[in-house]
Amino acid sequence: VVSKGLESGSKGSRTQAEILEHAVKIAASEGLSGLTIGRLAEELKMSKSGLFAHFRAKQKLELATIEHAWEIFSGQVLLPAEQSREGIDRVWALCDSWLRHIEGRVFRGSYFFTGAFFQHTGRQGQVPSRVAEAVRQWFEVVKDSVRAAQKRGEIENGVNPRQISFELQGLMIGAYWNRLLGHDEAFEKARTAVLRQLAAVASEDLPSTAFASLSDWRKFLRKRDR
Amino acid sequence: VVSKGLESGSKGSRTQAEILEHAVKIAASEGLSGLTIGRLAEELKMSKSGLFAHFRAKQKLELATIEHAWEIFSGQVLLPAEQSREGIDRVWALCDSWLRHIEGRVFRGSYFFTGAFFQHTGRQGQVPSRVAEAVRQWFEVVKDSVRAAQKRGEIENGVNPRQISFELQGLMIGAYWNRLLGHDEAFEKARTAVLRQLAAVASEDLPSTAFASLSDWRKFLRKRDR
Repeated sequence: VVSKGLESGSKGSRTQAEILEHAVKIAASEGLSGLTIGRLAEELKMSKSGLFAHFRAKQKLELATIEHAWEIFSGQVLLPAEQSREGIDRVWALCDSWLRHIEGRVFRGSYFFTGAFFQHTGRQGQVPSRVAEAVRQWFEVVKDSVRAAQKRGEIENGVNPRQISFELQGLMIGAYWNRLLGHDEAFEKARTAVLRQLAAVASEDLPSTAFASLSDWRKFLRKRDR
Repeated sequence: VVSKGLESGSKGSRTQAEILEHAVKIAASEGLSGLTIGRLAEELKMSKSGLFAHFRAKQKLELATIEHAWEIFSGQVLLPAEQSREGIDRVWALCDSWLRHIEGRVFRGSYFFTGAFFQHTGRQGQVPSRVAEAVRQWFEVVKDSVRAAQKRGEIENGVNPRQISFELQGLMIGAYWNRLLGHDEAFEKARTAVLRQLAAVASEDLPSTAFASLSDWRKFLRKRDR
């Protein structure tokens, strides 16, 4: 539940959710360094003191912004994938969904969480820690989905979940970079590469025809989903 | 030629090269937003006015810092690779050298040029443009090396240089990300993956045994190099 009208005054009031929505937009395209209380106040037509009432300090604002970005990421990437069947389907859904959130520009820039991770890596402090934790949380979800697929006998038991997760993650980040460099087909190529990786680790219980092409694969998933 | 002692005064003088060396260190780990004239002055024990004499404006300092980072990148990645034999050897040398500059922490953080590219992408201005240009310059060098290898008949003519360069680039960035996530073998795996890509596009004039393993490949290159 979002508390409304915490602030009262001539400059208008905003809920914490509205403030964070805007803060995520600024940080997504310019990084957390572009996010100042002064700028937020101006763009939201609020008083600085009104903003301070919400966050008290710049770091609190930064942490709340990261938290909100993580909620958006969860809602757009993790949640849809969780609707899919547990097993190799879920591993695919996570990768597919991650690529889609970049394609669909869920964040206006490439700060959350890719740029942020490169930028903050190796630094001390609550903000770098929270950024690294978000990236690790995502990685763990992928790894857990691989483990679950193994338990269901859909991915070979000899496969190391961490290793395959790194391979999938590498493909996705590489595609993102190439997309930024102007490679229009980067994501479709990445999906094909993800499928190829899954084919290589899938157990023999799954029909090899399912992995023949992206459209065969999607057909296979739809059929199972019914 | 570096001009020395441009500045004179009680706070000590520094050459432009010394100032930029330090500026690159700050920006590499904290981004250009961490780089201020005040901070540089303090850390270099210079006067702010002394620094302004060199750069006049924050943006000039930023552009000069990017330029210096590019020179370091060129010296550590491009130059060593240029010593290698033109052809598939050079394509390999560029990838190998790129991975080595990350492993060897040529830059203290991951801003140059990876973090910077993610952070500045899609933004207007001289700084984002120069960052994007640096990344593109590097990409062009890789692409040109593929083309040269084709001319020498070492990479199949049907191969699209842009496409294979994207694939190699994707592998490298993906490995970098995974390394930051704690995947210790990321770079050795990336080298194996690069070799596999090269094997897939190499012409039949090259012996397939050369591509059997990383050590076979290195032996093959050493032998040719003599």
